[in-house]
Amino acid sequence: ITQIDTAAETTDKGNYRHYMLKEIYEQPAVIQRSLLGRLGAKKILAEAMGARAEEILKTVSSIQIVACGTSYHAGMVAKYWIEGLAGVPCRVEVASEFRYRKFKVQDNTLLVTISQSGETADTLAALRLAKTLGYSATLTVCNVRQSSLVRESDLYLMTEAGPEIGVASTKAFTTQLVALLFLTVALGRHHDMTEAEENEIVRALHQLPNLLTETLELNKSIQRMSNAFADKHHALFLGRGAQWPIAMEGALKLKEISYIHAESYPAGELKHGPLALVDADMPVIAVAPNDVLLEKLKSNIEEVQARGGQLFVFCDKAAGFTAAKGMDIIELPHVSDAIAPIIYTIPLQLLSYHVAILKGTDVDQPRNLAKSVTVE
Amino acid sequence: ITQIDTAAETTDKGNYRHYMLKEIYEQPAVIQRSLLGRLGAKKILAEAMGARAEEILKTVSSIQIVACGTSYHAGMVAKYWIEGLAGVPCRVEVASEFRYRKFKVQDNTLLVTISQSGETADTLAALRLAKTLGYSATLTVCNVRQSSLVRESDLYLMTEAGPEIGVASTKAFTTQLVALLFLTVALGRHHDMTEAEENEIVRALHQLPNLLTETLELNKSIQRMSNAFADKHHALFLGRGAQWPIAMEGALKLKEISYIHAESYPAGELKHGPLALVDADMPVIAVAPNDVLLEKLKSNIEEVQARGGQLFVFCDKAAGFTAAKGMDIIELPHVSDAIAPIIYTIPLQLLSYHVAILKGTDVDQPRNLAKSVTVE
Repeated sequence: ITQIDTAAETTDKGNYRHYMLKEIYEQPAVIQRSLLGRLGAKKILAEAMGARAEEILKTVSSIQIVACGTSYHAGMVAKYWIEGLAGVPCRVEVASEFRYRKFKVQDNTLLVTISQSGETADTLAALRLAKTLGYSATLTVCNVRQSSLVRESDLYLMTEAGPEIGVASTKAFTTQLVALLFLTVALGRHHDMTEAEENEIVRALHQLPNLLTETLELNKSIQRMSNAFADKHHALFLGRGAQWPIAMEGALKLKEISYIHAESYPAGELKHGPLALVDADMPVIAVAPNDVLLEKLKSNIEEVQARGGQLFVFCDKAAGFTAAKGMDIIELPHVSDAIAPIIYTIPLQLLSYHVAILKGTDVDQPRNLAKSVTVE
Repeated sequence: ITQIDTAAETTDKGNYRHYMLKEIYEQPAVIQRSLLGRLGAKKILAEAMGARAEEILKTVSSIQIVACGTSYHAGMVAKYWIEGLAGVPCRVEVASEFRYRKFKVQDNTLLVTISQSGETADTLAALRLAKTLGYSATLTVCNVRQSSLVRESDLYLMTEAGPEIGVASTKAFTTQLVALLFLTVALGRHHDMTEAEENEIVRALHQLPNLLTETLELNKSIQRMSNAFADKHHALFLGRGAQWPIAMEGALKLKEISYIHAESYPAGELKHGPLALVDADMPVIAVAPNDVLLEKLKSNIEEVQARGGQLFVFCDKAAGFTAAKGMDIIELPHVSDAIAPIIYTIPLQLLSYHVAILKGTDVDQPRNLAKSVTVE
């Protein structure tokens, strides 16, 4: 396992106790930076994706995303965006599965890899394999400009997160999401996205840094909430739609740094098995923005309550949840659907951080894990 | 929640302590029955899929599978088969996600639903929605001939499992896999499957009932193995390729009836997070047939051993595993790749059954769960 070189500047934790916390708090600034030169007043700038992007993207009729771990979760969010907002068929697969199975590549498919380091062994092997399989072009969403993935892809979208030291990825994930939203809009222009829809996404992106700052102000409430997890060994994260992968990422964070066995489910699958696990020892975390799926999610949450599960709900101010016995609530600012997955990531990062502190684990260097998985 | 009517005959458990065990042992016979009239000496019989099947399947250029719970896992196996053996692009999605998101339907796509009862609320709603979205035809893999899914689909493939009473699905799952292998061959004929490949699958299907019987003889060894789980609250199931969904199904069985928090991962994702959880309290179960991924899986298994994880490996006799401190092994008969997912399901069913007995849970009626999820 090789560590990626990191610039000397980043060995400074500043006033933060851990790199992870510093990196969580850097998100408004690095996302602001990632918008620079890419975001016009009402539209994504044509330069956002690089010179050859237009020529390549206009011929694309489907997308195959390949990634591992946290980057795979970013790809899962992108699938909802690319299919739902741009109207382009999109598949997402774990790199270690993609590279070892047989399948037919459909015409005009763009292969998209996602990796913080750009050196993830399985993802890089998948890219090299894909070049022999007839994909029309390759694009990588990456945080390291000198990396193999960037050098070997036709197009790249840099995430501009700056060096990330904490093994559990935070700012790399949210900047990946921003980059993938740019990709969604760039694809949407050649497919089903109207100018009004693009304007709405651009408006939301302009608000994003301030909304992230506002969301970070929930830190104290989340720290208080984390006490409920100090003696827990399990957790279930629920979401629906594009928030399901956010629930996946929230579960992975808690798993990585607090060693709590956290698992995520799309909330609609609850009745098909995991509900059997729900009791007082299995806290359930739900991500509930105020979208079309809210009523469905509420009914899932009631099932958990009825079985004695302890609920922790992150919800829109307007979602109509009320704290009650067995149900803690943290309200988030109202945000537009397109950027909700980015915003709702923040409280889950903070929750895992505070729980890990209570558990006394090594937050920045969790056991058994390396920052970049550069061997298979 | 409505219980499906069951024929009077099935209220008899025979010599078995639970319906679940009876249904596990019925698998060789019901699978034998499901082959009748469908399997020729060297080829799948044209009648296997019903009169209109040929006409519909020859125009199909991609497959969308929609299902919930255990049926979703059958769909995941089918994806590996349909893409790998038939050369037809295939997507699989949880019904509660499929029905609430926007996407574009590609031309000539067959919608395939899978459900034991044929009344699963989200799956049925997905079928009804799909009919408005431009799918070229619909097919259901189902166990109840009078069900809504069968009545409302263009084609159906009955699983012939007979009534299933245990809430945790066993024989319904393996018969779904057999039906989906028939579908794979039927599709393959119009795409990338050679006659020799079809002959090989047919040969394997002819051997399947006897191989299942042989595999069930491992019951005593598996019962002994189950003692190691009596005091456990967690488990991790690993597989690669078409065995990953089998690991998913194994984890779901353990979860449903023993209330152990079992989770599955494609083995290649281990280093991207879950390895942090591995210690003496987190047993790791691996499904390791003797296929091209064996060496990769072995290296994943070594990582688990190096972190002090207790391993339980179900492997091919020829796979070259040796029991050691921290590693229990149960050897399965050597089987052909195509049917390996069906065979490897058996020991995982038996393991979950014996662990549940030790835990003293209500095996046939686990808490919080219903046999058929006929409400959303």
